[in-house]
Amino acid sequence: MIRKIAIRDRRFELDGSAGSDAVHKDPIYSYAVTELIDEGGLVGTGIAFTLGAGNELVCQAAKYYADKLIGKDIEEIMAGFGTLFYQFSNEQQFRWLGPHKGVVHLALASVTNACYDLWAKKRQQPLWKLLTSLSPEALVATLDLSYLEEELSAEQAIALLKENQTGRETRSAILKTGYPGYDTSIGWFNYSDDKVRENCKKAIAEGFTAMKLKVGSADPERDIRRANIVREVAGAEIKVMLDANQQWTLPQALRICSQLKSMNPYWIEEPTHPDDVIAHQVLAEAISPMKLALGEHVPNRIIFKNYLQSRSAAFIQVDAVRVGGVSEFITVSLLCKKFGIPVVPHVGDMGQLHQHLVLFNHISLNHEALFLEHIPHLQKYFLQPAKIRHGVYQTPQEPGSSCDFINLS
Amino acid sequence: MIRKIAIRDRRFELDGSAGSDAVHKDPIYSYAVTELIDEGGLVGTGIAFTLGAGNELVCQAAKYYADKLIGKDIEEIMAGFGTLFYQFSNEQQFRWLGPHKGVVHLALASVTNACYDLWAKKRQQPLWKLLTSLSPEALVATLDLSYLEEELSAEQAIALLKENQTGRETRSAILKTGYPGYDTSIGWFNYSDDKVRENCKKAIAEGFTAMKLKVGSADPERDIRRANIVREVAGAEIKVMLDANQQWTLPQALRICSQLKSMNPYWIEEPTHPDDVIAHQVLAEAISPMKLALGEHVPNRIIFKNYLQSRSAAFIQVDAVRVGGVSEFITVSLLCKKFGIPVVPHVGDMGQLHQHLVLFNHISLNHEALFLEHIPHLQKYFLQPAKIRHGVYQTPQEPGSSCDFINLS
Repeated sequence: MIRKIAIRDRRFELDGSAGSDAVHKDPIYSYAVTELIDEGGLVGTGIAFTLGAGNELVCQAAKYYADKLIGKDIEEIMAGFGTLFYQFSNEQQFRWLGPHKGVVHLALASVTNACYDLWAKKRQQPLWKLLTSLSPEALVATLDLSYLEEELSAEQAIALLKENQTGRETRSAILKTGYPGYDTSIGWFNYSDDKVRENCKKAIAEGFTAMKLKVGSADPERDIRRANIVREVAGAEIKVMLDANQQWTLPQALRICSQLKSMNPYWIEEPTHPDDVIAHQVLAEAISPMKLALGEHVPNRIIFKNYLQSRSAAFIQVDAVRVGGVSEFITVSLLCKKFGIPVVPHVGDMGQLHQHLVLFNHISLNHEALFLEHIPHLQKYFLQPAKIRHGVYQTPQEPGSSCDFINLS
Repeated sequence: MIRKIAIRDRRFELDGSAGSDAVHKDPIYSYAVTELIDEGGLVGTGIAFTLGAGNELVCQAAKYYADKLIGKDIEEIMAGFGTLFYQFSNEQQFRWLGPHKGVVHLALASVTNACYDLWAKKRQQPLWKLLTSLSPEALVATLDLSYLEEELSAEQAIALLKENQTGRETRSAILKTGYPGYDTSIGWFNYSDDKVRENCKKAIAEGFTAMKLKVGSADPERDIRRANIVREVAGAEIKVMLDANQQWTLPQALRICSQLKSMNPYWIEEPTHPDDVIAHQVLAEAISPMKLALGEHVPNRIIFKNYLQSRSAAFIQVDAVRVGGVSEFITVSLLCKKFGIPVVPHVGDMGQLHQHLVLFNHISLNHEALFLEHIPHLQKYFLQPAKIRHGVYQTPQEPGSSCDFINLS
């Protein structure tokens, strides 16, 4: 039974220009951390990610939800988590502040993730193991599928999980080989051309076969020059992704993308505003066969549904510390499976939680094990930092979701 | 020059079942109030609306923005307000909490509205008078048109304003006759059938020619029965709107709307989730010539653009205390004008601020003067409550935007 809760506001300064992109020149990686403490002293830790200012608002909203869990048993909570998620996200007064987006939804992510963490710790399993061992019915009971009825009912979700049980054992080999990573830290926005060149070489030497460059500059020539530098250093085989962080207008995106075609980007990420489904649809059609990736700023399953229905996103970058936590992440992954679109999470969690979720997606949902973003900057602050060797995430073995911090007091 | 700011958290209990809808069984009408106090003691008051819990989060976020205005002159602020709005809404760290939605955007609404209020008071004009007397160029300088480039550039916005100067004088007659209202308080969700019947008669006796019923019940039969009651009492000529408050799934909405056709609703409001552009598009096509109204929960101009582009909304209910204040309200009204869609605001402000904005929309933008929602419950708390006579809003004459409260201390 959950006896106590604690909410913590954790902020981390980054070194140099790390973390910078076209919007965030000076980010402070921050977490609204929820701790659920049970009668045996076990601590379930959940996080939501922000960039600094306002992290305290997410913390306050998380307390609003977490307080309602005191006195409840984690197994009972999780047996009907889908219903609880529905209730929390539709709390009649708080709902006005969203609905299902912004501060209140980030707060729900933090609390939801703490529930999954405590559940896995209670069962003494790493989260990926717990999730992959649940029955389809038990798994779907943890999801809120409301507002998806025309695309994904509970029955259809269960059927999708059952269909994809074929081949599970073969796919479980990934637990030994590890999940491929890609390097986001070669080309932060404020890095010089020389530093990008050098980082690119270093990433290849470390074994990465995919890497990402931040674009979205006020000067499109800069973007094009740097994209060509990365391609030149990386050679033809390495996958190079370009991330515009929503900085282009639709007319700009149409123009710049046509100029980027020759360097053959694997995807163009967040070309324009994350709410603009129709702009992405227009762009995707215009630049085909070049592909769009998006999701970092998409707050909920309903907007992801629209992106899938409009065929505008070729890669879905749902982030479990932006949407309503593990539960909604799985919901979106099920939707993506239905539409045949790969899930390549944005890792606001630095990959700690998502290393579990992509293993689940691959083993239980038969999503292709493409690669998981890797951002190393906060490794020293996590109790069990993700282990990357030769560009590959090593399967975590400790109970829980790997989201505990060191010295959190 | 703005010398001081104050942020106030104001909450009002409602009597009986007033204010109740399919989501909000027990609402507490609340305002995050921003006050900007200048060197002469003039107080600019801006509000954002919430339903209770979490209003304090909006207040805290409003302080974050308002603090940046200290030491600035209101005329200088407003001369380039579009740029300031862009900067505030894209503050690099705070932006993560939206972007352009939820708590941070409600907070921006509160601060923006305080700026417009102070501006009008400084010029000793009611807000409608100030807005209608600005040059097209000066007006557009107060707007942030980013992410609308493919539909509405600054030049196009100015041209649209200039085109619609024809007929201004004729349309200004509305200042004498008053702006028509409609009665939202006849059919709150928790009211009994008898009370709805009685309120309906009372509204007609008071001179209203349009009224609204809350539907979206778990029991569709209840919705259909009550809709027919209102039509029966109102007769064929009165406009009857039905408001589902997002409670239907798409399959339900398709089914129930077909059963509501016979009572000839003027519009169906918020049938399903406010983020679901594609569901509304599907529904609008299926139930035509019945029409959809939406906007109460739509946070920004970009999503409104998608609703207009997809031709799913026949009435746009943008609310200046939900989107980023007066500035974004005008931006959305310009977009609507371009698409030929009427603006019928949701009045989270109880009509205090919107009575000014619909006069501007009619006189300067040549939007049809359809009718403005009227909710009487908080009249006693405003210093200059909106005056409704025979179902018609009387033009406010006092300087400012009519958003001051009594005894605010």
